[in-house]
Amino acid sequence: MEDITLEKAAALLLEHDNILILMHKSPDGDTIGSGYALCLALRKAGKKAQAICSDPIPAKYGYITDSIEPQDFEPDFIVSADIAAPQLFGDKLEVYKDSVDLCIDHHGSNTKFAKYSHVEPNAASCAEIVARLIPLLGTEIDAPAADALFTGISTDTGCFKFRNTSADTFRAAAEMIDRGARNYLISTLMFDTKSKAQLELEKRAIETIDYRMDGKIAIITLTTEMMKSTGADESETEYIVSLPRQIEGVMAGVTIKQKGERLCRISVRASDGVDASEICRLFGGGGHKGAAGCSIEASPEETKELIAEAIEKVIGKQI
Amino acid sequence: MEDITLEKAAALLLEHDNILILMHKSPDGDTIGSGYALCLALRKAGKKAQAICSDPIPAKYGYITDSIEPQDFEPDFIVSADIAAPQLFGDKLEVYKDSVDLCIDHHGSNTKFAKYSHVEPNAASCAEIVARLIPLLGTEIDAPAADALFTGISTDTGCFKFRNTSADTFRAAAEMIDRGARNYLISTLMFDTKSKAQLELEKRAIETIDYRMDGKIAIITLTTEMMKSTGADESETEYIVSLPRQIEGVMAGVTIKQKGERLCRISVRASDGVDASEICRLFGGGGHKGAAGCSIEASPEETKELIAEAIEKVIGKQI
Repeated sequence: MEDITLEKAAALLLEHDNILILMHKSPDGDTIGSGYALCLALRKAGKKAQAICSDPIPAKYGYITDSIEPQDFEPDFIVSADIAAPQLFGDKLEVYKDSVDLCIDHHGSNTKFAKYSHVEPNAASCAEIVARLIPLLGTEIDAPAADALFTGISTDTGCFKFRNTSADTFRAAAEMIDRGARNYLISTLMFDTKSKAQLELEKRAIETIDYRMDGKIAIITLTTEMMKSTGADESETEYIVSLPRQIEGVMAGVTIKQKGERLCRISVRASDGVDASEICRLFGGGGHKGAAGCSIEASPEETKELIAEAIEKVIGKQI
Repeated sequence: MEDITLEKAAALLLEHDNILILMHKSPDGDTIGSGYALCLALRKAGKKAQAICSDPIPAKYGYITDSIEPQDFEPDFIVSADIAAPQLFGDKLEVYKDSVDLCIDHHGSNTKFAKYSHVEPNAASCAEIVARLIPLLGTEIDAPAADALFTGISTDTGCFKFRNTSADTFRAAAEMIDRGARNYLISTLMFDTKSKAQLELEKRAIETIDYRMDGKIAIITLTTEMMKSTGADESETEYIVSLPRQIEGVMAGVTIKQKGERLCRISVRASDGVDASEICRLFGGGGHKGAAGCSIEASPEETKELIAEAIEKVIGKQI
């Protein structure tokens, strides 16, 4: 439960020889990039190291993961990368919940579940922190680690577009390219590749857009039928979730994803002046001002009316 | 017709007091950002300066242009920003075709139409060059100029995703933020804002996708009817043009834009290993390996067959 500096974090890692790295469930580019880069650096420093995740790593990250051989060892130190809270460990890593030695993260909401924590809420990505940690281990960031870290930096900033993107983010990206990161390959895979299923889902998603409050609210609905008939998977809905807020004049963009007959997961994206987390807290969810989420036990149609009504109230108050 | 260094370009500018800056027709973020930043810097250096364009500057660039008052003067020096060839001057600037003193550009295809040229084909944007030119004028890049230059850098690299994006691109972006560029505002306006008309056009564009050669070719058709009924304008087709190449497995992505009953403009985007410019040269067009264009005098249906047949031959030969 102790907050420590990055130097102290490096010292702790160097004191141990068999280091297990945990990534969060439903892994994204930042937890994968941070976890694998740290693994590569620790191995370079002469340690045994392994990065593990409760869920399979999506195939599109193969350029990071393919060259890393698994190592078998009894861990004497456990570090988590980009994990804000124990409920993000996932079923398979549940067992490590109370035994994390070091937590490296950039979420302001981090619950400080580890023995030692190094959390930088101002860092746009966990990968930015790991990029500064690796040199403290006495090793250099090599090309494979640079690929991994560039992935974390670019994905957690929505390709350098989100509000969290700072001059330091751009400088970290430049340094990774200097060290061998294949930025064009990575950007193409992460941001410029769509499956046919994804494209079909996008078309059908646009057809469902429902504007409320003179276009200040836009709501997309993705039913289980739409997911099934297009063959798109959950990871392919990311662009769709960002879509309604992008429409001119929209202050709150909502995506309703049907998860059961009477269960929907809601993602809210908000413009300046509207607090998405305030909206989602009304339904027991949470998040950031710009992006938040919650679940509602109702049909998609009922959910739409409930969330629209709530947003109208919040927007009416906030603007 | 003389190639000169950036230092010499700065010296020439400093020798004159009334400087007219030309931007290319159908202005994009790079010509606008470069032109206006140079204008601001020259005024700061005590000159009269004005940036002009044959076409109106789209309203979305208002955050750059709104604060710049017009100045009235008789120019004694004419400089062009981001203009590769005289046919890009447009009708209103036609009159300056043979009297450009200095050309600042980053297109390898630059025809060297000016008395003096400074062309850097390796620069991802003209704005990157202007960012290095301004300090040579003895002035600093202030926040409004940083906004303009960040716009050029980010738009000409497709938000830091295109192949031309280098470590230097990221460093230039970082420097602009340090100098006051509002990167979040700019990225939102340039890359995360869509009109309802644009979204409707996207949906209809996806409906037209025609796959050929087992999905190696994807062709989108935008008819004049589609443009008219959705109300979308030409500048709103940019995302659509990039779409077909993004589809998994597609090596050549084609967008056919109907311009008349028997006239189509074709944009080709190609993956590694396929040369889009070779395809477009078959129809009298040209461009780069990754992106090229041409016109065909035929109906959209005939155009599709002609271009598909040509691409099948070129892909068959190239891969």
